[in-house]
Amino acid sequence: MKKLLILVTGVASIMMALPAAAQFAKPEDAIKYRKASFTVMAAHFSRVGAMATGRVPYDAKAAAENADIAAAMAKLPWAAFPEGSDKGETRAKPEIWKDSAKYKEAADKMQAELSKVAVAAKAGNVDALKAAFGPASATCKGCHDTFRKE
Amino acid sequence: MKKLLILVTGVASIMMALPAAAQFAKPEDAIKYRKASFTVMAAHFSRVGAMATGRVPYDAKAAAENADIAAAMAKLPWAAFPEGSDKGETRAKPEIWKDSAKYKEAADKMQAELSKVAVAAKAGNVDALKAAFGPASATCKGCHDTFRKE
Repeated sequence: MKKLLILVTGVASIMMALPAAAQFAKPEDAIKYRKASFTVMAAHFSRVGAMATGRVPYDAKAAAENADIAAAMAKLPWAAFPEGSDKGETRAKPEIWKDSAKYKEAADKMQAELSKVAVAAKAGNVDALKAAFGPASATCKGCHDTFRKE
Repeated sequence: MKKLLILVTGVASIMMALPAAAQFAKPEDAIKYRKASFTVMAAHFSRVGAMATGRVPYDAKAAAENADIAAAMAKLPWAAFPEGSDKGETRAKPEIWKDSAKYKEAADKMQAELSKVAVAAKAGNVDALKAAFGPASATCKGCHDTFRKE
């Protein structure tokens, strides 16, 4: 029974990983892609953050544009964590694959919060942006603490 | 007169570079960002290419999704070529800044062709995709030959 369970779990995890894995010929391609998508996302999100925290003057148009791009980019990295891409030039912790349900939950939460920031940025007032930025920013830190090596 | 011309040209080039430069604290940040955006774009464009050239079976939904992301990503790198970002971990040739009008033309052409691929991909037939893919792919090579080191 235990053997069967391991087999079923193994097959399920291969099947879950398949769509993502099939998109990248090698694990290092997936690693490069997910880092790149996080880099682009972070660049735009940090511009929103600079306005939300008053480090640069609020510019409604720039805030909306950057928040939109950040929210769109937030959808991309998750397909690039196939099994076997835990080694190499990556700070991804084994917990990503061991506790994949929790990782997916964190990823979904982050995308939801970044979408809220994009909606708030379109409202065109800095207070709405500030209110949405805090929780979104917290999802970055929360996920890094649990799933990313120092 | 010549001195004035140099001064005016210098000021104009600083002004043109300002919006891009202002977005990145350091030249290496701009370099990292533009490489990352090209990486994400290339990953999605190559999936479209694999279908357009028959290396993987045509999947209308996947083609449309990947072409859309590639076309959106194609807009991003160009703000990340501020003056002074020709040094460091980059294969960018000096021609990008010396012949910036020609570089902009090549960048615009690439974006236009990738938008055409996205439109063709939405049509949902592989022949439309094949017809649009060739010219779009040629813009990659054309720009690399002139503006990117080996």
